[in-house]
Amino acid sequence: EYFSETRPITPKQLVVTNLHFFFHDTLTAPNPSAILIAKPTHTRGDNDSSPSPFGSLFALDDPLTVGPDPKSEKIGNARGMYVSSGKHVPTLTMYVDFGFTSGKFNGSSIAVFSRNTITEKEREVAVVGGRGRFRMARGVAQLNTYYVNLTNGDAIVEYNVTLYHY
Amino acid sequence: EYFSETRPITPKQLVVTNLHFFFHDTLTAPNPSAILIAKPTHTRGDNDSSPSPFGSLFALDDPLTVGPDPKSEKIGNARGMYVSSGKHVPTLTMYVDFGFTSGKFNGSSIAVFSRNTITEKEREVAVVGGRGRFRMARGVAQLNTYYVNLTNGDAIVEYNVTLYHY
Repeated sequence: EYFSETRPITPKQLVVTNLHFFFHDTLTAPNPSAILIAKPTHTRGDNDSSPSPFGSLFALDDPLTVGPDPKSEKIGNARGMYVSSGKHVPTLTMYVDFGFTSGKFNGSSIAVFSRNTITEKEREVAVVGGRGRFRMARGVAQLNTYYVNLTNGDAIVEYNVTLYHY
Repeated sequence: EYFSETRPITPKQLVVTNLHFFFHDTLTAPNPSAILIAKPTHTRGDNDSSPSPFGSLFALDDPLTVGPDPKSEKIGNARGMYVSSGKHVPTLTMYVDFGFTSGKFNGSSIAVFSRNTITEKEREVAVVGGRGRFRMARGVAQLNTYYVNLTNGDAIVEYNVTLYHY
Protein backbone atom coordinates (compact mmCIF):
# COMPACT_ATOMS: atom_id res chain seq x y z
CA GLU A 1 0.00 0.00 0.00
CA TYR A 2 1.12 3.57 -0.58
CA PHE A 3 -0.11 4.58 2.92
CA SER A 4 0.84 3.62 6.47
CA GLU A 5 -1.36 3.32 9.51
CA THR A 6 -2.57 6.72 10.66
CA ARG A 7 -1.36 7.19 14.24
CA PRO A 8 -1.95 9.78 16.98
CA ILE A 9 0.96 12.13 17.68
CA THR A 10 1.57 14.88 20.26
CA PRO A 11 2.83 18.08 18.61
CA LYS A 12 6.33 19.23 19.63
CA GLN A 13 6.82 22.55 21.45
CA LEU A 14 5.85 25.47 19.17
CA VAL A 15 8.61 28.09 18.79
CA VAL A 16 8.76 31.53 17.20
CA THR A 17 11.61 33.12 15.22
CA ASN A 18 11.79 36.59 13.70
CA LEU A 19 13.66 37.33 10.47
CA HIS A 20 14.65 40.74 9.09
CA PHE A 21 16.14 41.28 5.62
CA PHE A 22 15.84 43.27 2.40
CA PHE A 23 14.46 41.87 -0.86
CA HIS A 24 15.84 43.28 -4.15
CA ASP A 25 13.59 42.89 -7.19
CA THR A 26 15.31 44.16 -10.35
CA LEU A 27 13.49 44.03 -13.68
CA THR A 28 15.87 46.31 -15.59
CA ALA A 29 19.01 45.53 -17.57
CA PRO A 30 21.93 44.88 -17.36
CA ASN A 31 21.34 42.39 -14.55
CA PRO A 32 17.63 41.70 -13.99
CA SER A 33 16.75 39.28 -11.18
CA ALA A 34 13.10 39.04 -12.27
CA ILE A 35 12.14 38.27 -15.86
CA LEU A 36 8.88 38.08 -17.75
CA ILE A 37 7.75 34.52 -18.49
CA ALA A 38 4.59 35.38 -20.39
CA LYS A 39 1.73 37.82 -20.45
CA PRO A 40 -1.72 37.97 -22.12
CA THR A 41 -1.73 39.11 -25.73
CA HIS A 42 -3.88 42.09 -24.87
CA THR A 43 -4.73 42.90 -21.28
CA ARG A 44 -8.00 44.78 -20.85
CA GLY A 45 -6.85 46.09 -17.48
CA ASP A 46 -6.34 49.80 -16.98
CA ASN A 47 -2.68 49.63 -16.07
CA ASP A 48 -1.55 48.60 -19.56
CA SER A 49 1.31 51.07 -19.53
CA SER A 50 2.69 49.72 -16.24
CA PRO A 51 5.78 47.48 -16.34
CA SER A 52 3.58 44.57 -15.31
CA PRO A 53 0.04 44.76 -16.75
CA PHE A 54 -2.70 42.39 -15.51
CA GLY A 55 -1.68 38.80 -16.17
CA SER A 56 2.07 39.40 -16.51
CA LEU A 57 3.88 36.40 -15.02
CA PHE A 58 7.45 36.76 -13.80
CA ALA A 59 10.11 34.31 -12.63
CA LEU A 60 12.38 35.67 -9.95
CA ASP A 61 15.69 34.84 -8.34
CA ASP A 62 15.97 37.90 -6.11
CA PRO A 63 18.84 38.42 -3.67
CA LEU A 64 18.13 38.90 0.05
CA THR A 65 20.56 41.09 2.03
CA VAL A 66 20.96 42.22 5.64
CA GLY A 67 20.67 45.89 4.75
CA PRO A 68 18.87 48.04 2.15
CA ASP A 69 22.12 48.50 0.18
CA PRO A 70 22.23 45.86 -2.56
CA LYS A 71 25.94 45.50 -1.76
CA SER A 72 25.28 44.66 1.90
CA GLU A 73 25.83 41.07 3.03
CA LYS A 74 23.81 38.58 0.99
CA ILE A 75 22.00 36.06 3.24
CA GLY A 76 19.74 34.27 0.76
CA ASN A 77 17.56 34.36 -2.35
CA ALA A 78 13.86 34.43 -3.18
CA ARG A 79 13.01 32.03 -5.99
CA GLY A 80 9.66 31.47 -7.64
CA MET A 81 7.01 33.48 -9.47
CA TYR A 82 4.69 36.39 -9.05
CA VAL A 83 1.80 37.39 -11.27
CA SER A 84 0.25 40.81 -11.70
CA SER A 85 -3.25 39.92 -10.48
CA GLY A 86 -5.24 43.15 -10.34
CA LYS A 87 -7.25 44.30 -13.34
CA HIS A 88 -7.54 47.91 -12.19
CA VAL A 89 -4.87 48.20 -9.54
CA PRO A 90 -1.19 47.26 -9.52
CA THR A 91 -1.07 44.25 -7.18
CA LEU A 92 0.74 40.91 -7.15
CA THR A 93 0.06 37.37 -6.06
CA MET A 94 3.32 35.71 -4.96
CA TYR A 95 4.43 32.08 -5.15
CA VAL A 96 7.93 32.43 -3.79
CA ASP A 97 10.30 30.30 -1.68
CA PHE A 98 12.68 32.44 0.42
CA GLY A 99 15.86 30.42 1.05
CA PHE A 100 18.66 31.33 3.42
CA THR A 101 22.34 30.76 2.60
CA SER A 102 24.24 31.91 5.69
CA GLY A 103 24.29 31.51 9.44
CA LYS A 104 22.01 29.38 11.58
CA PHE A 105 19.31 28.93 8.93
CA ASN A 106 21.60 28.19 5.98
CA GLY A 107 19.81 25.60 3.82
CA SER A 108 16.34 26.31 5.25
CA SER A 109 13.55 28.18 3.48
CA ILE A 110 10.01 29.49 3.87
CA ALA A 111 7.16 29.48 1.35
CA VAL A 112 5.21 32.65 0.68
CA PHE A 113 1.91 32.23 -1.17
CA SER A 114 -0.10 35.40 -0.88
CA ARG A 115 -1.43 38.55 -2.45
CA ASN A 116 0.99 41.45 -2.06
CA THR A 117 -0.72 44.86 -2.20
CA ILE A 118 2.31 46.74 -3.51
CA THR A 119 0.56 50.11 -3.70
CA GLU A 120 0.41 50.13 0.12
CA LYS A 121 3.79 51.18 1.59
CA GLU A 122 3.25 48.80 4.52
CA ARG A 123 1.43 45.50 3.99
CA GLU A 124 1.47 41.85 4.96
CA VAL A 125 1.97 38.55 3.12
CA ALA A 126 1.23 35.02 4.32
CA VAL A 127 3.92 32.39 5.01
CA VAL A 128 2.33 28.99 4.38
CA GLY A 129 5.18 26.49 4.83
CA GLY A 130 8.88 25.82 5.15
CA ARG A 131 11.84 23.44 4.77
CA GLY A 132 14.82 22.40 6.87
CA ARG A 133 14.76 24.12 10.28
CA PHE A 134 11.62 25.89 9.12
CA ARG A 135 9.67 22.69 8.50
CA MET A 136 5.93 23.16 9.15
CA ALA A 137 6.52 26.90 9.50
CA ARG A 138 3.61 29.28 9.20
CA GLY A 139 3.44 32.95 9.84
CA VAL A 140 3.37 36.44 8.46
CA ALA A 141 5.79 38.84 6.82
CA GLN A 142 5.32 42.59 7.29
CA LEU A 143 6.57 44.36 4.14
CA ASN A 144 7.72 47.95 3.90
CA THR A 145 8.72 49.42 0.54
CA TYR A 146 12.16 50.95 0.97
CA TYR A 147 12.52 51.97 -2.71
CA VAL A 148 10.37 51.55 -5.84
CA ASN A 149 10.64 52.87 -9.41
CA LEU A 150 7.06 53.00 -10.67
CA THR A 151 8.06 53.28 -14.31
CA ASN A 152 10.42 50.30 -14.57
CA GLY A 153 9.25 48.30 -11.54
CA ASP A 154 12.58 47.92 -9.71
CA ALA A 155 12.05 47.73 -5.95
CA ILE A 156 13.79 47.15 -2.61
CA VAL A 157 11.42 45.87 0.11
CA GLU A 158 12.11 45.43 3.81
CA TYR A 159 10.78 42.16 5.28
CA ASN A 160 10.00 41.60 8.97
CA VAL A 161 8.92 37.97 9.28
CA THR A 162 7.31 36.26 12.30
CA LEU A 163 7.58 32.48 11.95
CA TYR A 164 5.84 29.83 14.09
CA HIS A 165 7.52 26.45 13.67
CA TYR A 166 8.72 23.40 15.68
CA GLU B 1 22.04 39.02 11.99
CA TYR B 2 18.93 38.52 9.90
CA PHE B 3 17.39 36.18 12.52
CA SER B 4 16.37 36.52 16.17
CA GLU B 5 16.59 34.03 19.00
CA THR B 6 14.15 31.15 18.54
CA ARG B 7 11.85 31.13 21.57
CA PRO B 8 9.16 28.71 22.81
CA ILE B 9 5.62 30.05 22.55
CA THR B 10 2.20 28.86 23.66
CA PRO B 11 -0.27 28.75 20.75
CA LYS B 12 -3.24 31.11 21.03
CA GLN B 13 -6.79 29.75 21.20
CA LEU B 14 -7.81 28.21 17.86
CA VAL B 15 -11.06 29.64 16.46
CA VAL B 16 -13.30 28.72 13.53
CA THR B 17 -15.11 31.06 11.11
CA ASN B 18 -17.41 30.17 8.22
CA LEU B 19 -17.62 32.25 5.05
CA HIS B 20 -20.28 32.09 2.35
CA PHE B 21 -20.02 33.92 -0.97
CA PHE B 22 -20.27 33.54 -4.75
CA PHE B 23 -17.26 33.54 -7.08
CA HIS B 24 -17.76 34.93 -10.62
CA ASP B 25 -15.27 33.73 -13.23
CA THR B 26 -15.86 35.43 -16.59
CA LEU B 27 -13.67 34.58 -19.58
CA THR B 28 -15.85 36.21 -22.23
CA ALA B 29 -15.79 39.76 -23.59
CA PRO B 30 -16.63 42.60 -23.07
CA ASN B 31 -15.41 42.48 -19.48
CA PRO B 32 -13.50 39.29 -18.74
CA SER B 33 -12.21 38.85 -15.18
CA ALA B 34 -9.99 35.90 -16.14
CA ILE B 35 -7.58 36.04 -19.08
CA LEU B 36 -5.27 33.56 -20.74
CA ILE B 37 -1.61 34.15 -19.86
CA ALA B 38 -0.20 31.34 -21.98
CA LYS B 39 -0.86 27.79 -23.11
CA PRO B 40 1.20 25.02 -24.73
CA THR B 41 1.54 25.39 -28.50
CA HIS B 42 -0.19 22.08 -29.10
CA THR B 43 -1.92 20.38 -26.21
CA ARG B 44 -1.95 16.61 -26.55
CA GLY B 45 -4.86 16.30 -24.13
CA ASP B 46 -8.26 15.10 -25.27
CA ASN B 47 -10.16 18.25 -24.42
CA ASP B 48 -8.53 20.44 -27.08
CA SER B 49 -11.83 21.99 -28.06
CA SER B 50 -12.54 23.11 -24.48
CA PRO B 51 -12.03 26.80 -23.59
CA SER B 52 -9.09 25.74 -21.43
CA PRO B 53 -7.14 22.80 -22.90
CA PHE B 54 -4.50 21.05 -20.79
CA GLY B 55 -1.77 23.52 -19.76
CA SER B 56 -3.76 26.72 -20.28
CA LEU B 57 -2.72 29.20 -17.59
CA PHE B 58 -5.09 31.99 -16.62
CA ALA B 59 -4.73 35.11 -14.45
CA LEU B 60 -7.87 36.09 -12.57
CA ASP B 61 -9.25 39.06 -10.71
CA ASP B 62 -12.70 37.61 -10.04
CA PRO B 63 -15.36 39.43 -8.01
CA LEU B 64 -16.87 37.82 -4.90
CA THR B 65 -20.49 38.71 -4.04
CA VAL B 66 -22.98 37.87 -1.30
CA GLY B 67 -25.47 36.33 -3.71
CA PRO B 68 -25.39 34.45 -7.02
CA ASP B 69 -26.45 37.60 -8.91
CA PRO B 70 -23.29 39.30 -10.21
CA LYS B 71 -24.96 42.61 -9.29
CA SER B 72 -25.40 41.56 -5.64
CA GLU B 73 -23.18 43.23 -3.03
CA LYS B 74 -19.48 42.83 -3.81
CA ILE B 75 -17.52 41.71 -0.73
CA GLY B 76 -14.12 40.90 -2.20
CA ASN B 77 -12.01 39.60 -5.08
CA ALA B 78 -10.09 36.45 -5.92
CA ARG B 79 -6.68 37.26 -7.40
CA GLY B 80 -4.08 34.84 -8.72
CA MET B 81 -3.90 32.05 -11.30
CA TYR B 82 -5.37 28.72 -12.21
CA VAL B 83 -4.00 26.21 -14.68
CA SER B 84 -5.92 23.55 -16.61
CA SER B 85 -4.17 20.55 -15.16
CA GLY B 86 -5.97 17.47 -16.49
CA LYS B 87 -4.73 15.80 -19.67
CA HIS B 88 -7.92 13.83 -20.23
CA VAL B 89 -10.44 15.58 -18.00
CA PRO B 90 -11.37 19.24 -17.50
CA THR B 91 -9.89 20.05 -14.08
CA LEU B 92 -7.99 22.96 -12.54
CA THR B 93 -5.23 23.56 -10.03
CA MET B 94 -5.77 26.89 -8.25
CA TYR B 95 -3.21 29.39 -6.87
CA VAL B 96 -5.63 32.08 -5.72
CA ASP B 97 -5.75 34.59 -2.86
CA PHE B 98 -9.36 35.41 -1.86
CA GLY B 99 -9.39 38.91 -0.35
CA PHE B 100 -12.31 40.56 1.43
CA THR B 101 -13.13 44.25 1.01
CA SER B 102 -16.06 44.88 3.33
CA GLY B 103 -17.21 44.28 6.90
CA LYS B 104 -15.27 42.63 9.70
CA PHE B 105 -12.71 40.95 7.43
CA ASN B 106 -12.01 43.91 5.16
CA GLY B 107 -8.30 43.77 4.27
CA SER B 108 -7.90 40.08 5.22
CA SER B 109 -7.49 37.21 2.76
CA ILE B 110 -7.13 33.45 2.48
CA ALA B 111 -4.86 31.47 0.18
CA VAL B 112 -6.29 28.58 -1.86
CA PHE B 113 -3.72 26.23 -3.36
CA SER B 114 -5.55 23.14 -4.51
CA ARG B 115 -6.89 21.02 -7.31
CA ASN B 116 -10.49 21.93 -8.21
CA THR B 117 -12.43 19.09 -9.86
CA ILE B 118 -14.79 21.34 -11.82
CA THR B 119 -16.67 18.47 -13.49
CA GLU B 120 -18.10 17.54 -10.07
CA LYS B 121 -21.00 19.83 -9.13
CA GLU B 122 -19.90 19.69 -5.48
CA ARG B 123 -16.26 19.47 -4.55
CA GLU B 124 -13.71 20.74 -2.07
CA VAL B 125 -10.54 22.87 -2.26
CA ALA B 126 -7.80 23.39 0.32
CA VAL B 127 -7.15 26.65 2.16
CA VAL B 128 -3.45 26.73 3.10
CA GLY B 129 -2.90 30.16 4.64
CA GLY B 130 -4.15 33.68 5.24
CA ARG B 131 -3.42 37.33 5.99
CA GLY B 132 -4.73 39.98 8.37
CA ARG B 133 -7.41 38.51 10.66
CA PHE B 134 -6.95 35.24 8.81
CA ARG B 135 -3.28 34.92 9.66
CA MET B 136 -2.20 31.30 9.96
CA ALA B 137 -5.62 30.19 8.65
CA ARG B 138 -6.15 26.72 7.27
CA GLY B 139 -9.31 25.03 6.25
CA VAL B 140 -11.56 23.82 3.48
CA ALA B 141 -13.95 25.38 0.99
CA GLN B 142 -16.93 23.40 -0.24
CA LEU B 143 -17.68 24.48 -3.81
CA ASN B 144 -21.01 24.15 -5.58
CA THR B 145 -21.36 25.16 -9.24
CA TYR B 146 -24.30 27.53 -9.44
CA TYR B 147 -23.88 28.24 -13.20
CA VAL B 148 -21.40 27.16 -15.87
CA ASN B 149 -21.22 27.63 -19.64
CA LEU B 150 -19.26 24.63 -20.92
CA THR B 151 -18.54 26.20 -24.28
CA ASN B 152 -17.08 29.53 -23.18
CA GLY B 153 -16.08 28.62 -19.61
CA ASP B 154 -17.94 31.38 -17.74
CA ALA B 155 -19.00 30.18 -14.28
CA ILE B 156 -20.57 31.24 -10.97
CA VAL B 157 -19.52 29.05 -8.02
CA GLU B 158 -20.90 29.04 -4.48
CA TYR B 159 -18.23 28.85 -1.75
CA ASN B 160 -18.86 27.61 1.79
CA VAL B 161 -15.56 28.01 3.62
CA THR B 162 -14.63 26.64 7.05
CA LEU B 163 -11.57 28.43 8.39
CA TYR B 164 -9.46 27.46 11.43
CA HIS B 165 -7.31 30.37 12.59
CA TYR B 166 -6.20 32.33 15.72
